[in-house]
Amino acid sequence: MKAAGPIELGEGKSSAPRAGVSRGMAILGFILRILAFIGTLASAISMATTNETLPFFTQFIRFRAEYNDLPTFTFFVVANGVVSAYLLFSLPFSIFNIVRSKAQSIRILLIILDTTKSACQATNYAENKHFEISDWINEITITQAMLGLLTAGASAAAAIVYLAHRGNVRTNWFAICQQYNSFCERISGSLIGSFIGVVLLMLLILLSAVALSRHK
Amino acid sequence: MKAAGPIELGEGKSSAPRAGVSRGMAILGFILRILAFIGTLASAISMATTNETLPFFTQFIRFRAEYNDLPTFTFFVVANGVVSAYLLFSLPFSIFNIVRSKAQSIRILLIILDTTKSACQATNYAENKHFEISDWINEITITQAMLGLLTAGASAAAAIVYLAHRGNVRTNWFAICQQYNSFCERISGSLIGSFIGVVLLMLLILLSAVALSRHK
Repeated sequence: MKAAGPIELGEGKSSAPRAGVSRGMAILGFILRILAFIGTLASAISMATTNETLPFFTQFIRFRAEYNDLPTFTFFVVANGVVSAYLLFSLPFSIFNIVRSKAQSIRILLIILDTTKSACQATNYAENKHFEISDWINEITITQAMLGLLTAGASAAAAIVYLAHRGNVRTNWFAICQQYNSFCERISGSLIGSFIGVVLLMLLILLSAVALSRHK
Repeated sequence: MKAAGPIELGEGKSSAPRAGVSRGMAILGFILRILAFIGTLASAISMATTNETLPFFTQFIRFRAEYNDLPTFTFFVVANGVVSAYLLFSLPFSIFNIVRSKAQSIRILLIILDTTKSACQATNYAENKHFEISDWINEITITQAMLGLLTAGASAAAAIVYLAHRGNVRTNWFAICQQYNSFCERISGSLIGSFIGVVLLMLLILLSAVALSRHK
């Protein structure tokens, strides 16, 4: 009986940091999601609210620049809006993950928190390992689709912003930023939040992959 | 002793399809990689070789359109080139995966095939499970970076191609496709291979995630 003591102690020690790492990863995922949500929402709002009216106008035309003058910017706003809505929607699931990693045995708490799924499913969730694995893979799929949407929106907008700043001599597309100065500054700035969101979503997918590899 | 018979048989049965699924996934990954390689390479080549010279010219200017007139198209060619080079480079690893899933015990074959790693590492590879898991996560990371690069290139080019076709009234950017007709057709077509590549890379990441979840 004495010989078994240190082995049991050793097992207890290796199990506790493991659960701790799981919880740390769940909290990290939650923080990344909040940051990505703030970034994409800020991008969408700053692009959508930007407009500039030039101080001179003719009888028929007022010179005014808005985001929806260019279809690419409309796509950028929609993409950022969709991704930030998904991130907001995913926050309760993220909290659920933190709670689950803290105390897996408290079933009643899970059922109360898991408002989007039926109570029956919530019980299965804690019992069935296969459910969890397919859940992680679902999460990777959805996050990847969101990443694709956000990357497409951000880089298409970046291509147009570049054109607005520099113009193109060969195609006779003139740089509009010489007239619409503050408009161009705002749309350039709104790209930052979107690209930060892209990096954070990539980290989230990696985190899901690491979490997946730890389920044994 | 008799009671153990069916259990052993059952275990044997469940192990054989499991290895079969692993091998099927490895072959599927290989096919996806070849298709993505063809798609991205075709995109890069068709964009890079496109040019159109208009039949009329003045004393000083010849009207000629090439991909490097627009920086976005140069980025598109570079992005597709980098991704297709990565996919070509990853094919030997993919073959190695198929072989490994077929016969894990034939060490000598692994060492011969695994020309990019030392023989010592190849032996560790087959023995050490931790190596495999970090390997899958590495693969997801790299594939994700390639996916980001390809999506950015393809959607930025798509934004410019859209502008070339439709132009924009508010910014006075005229549709150049009215003059450069066949040039526009070629650059529009070259986007297809790139977007197919994006979808295939997404499937590859999912496949890696599923493979990761099966390592126990």
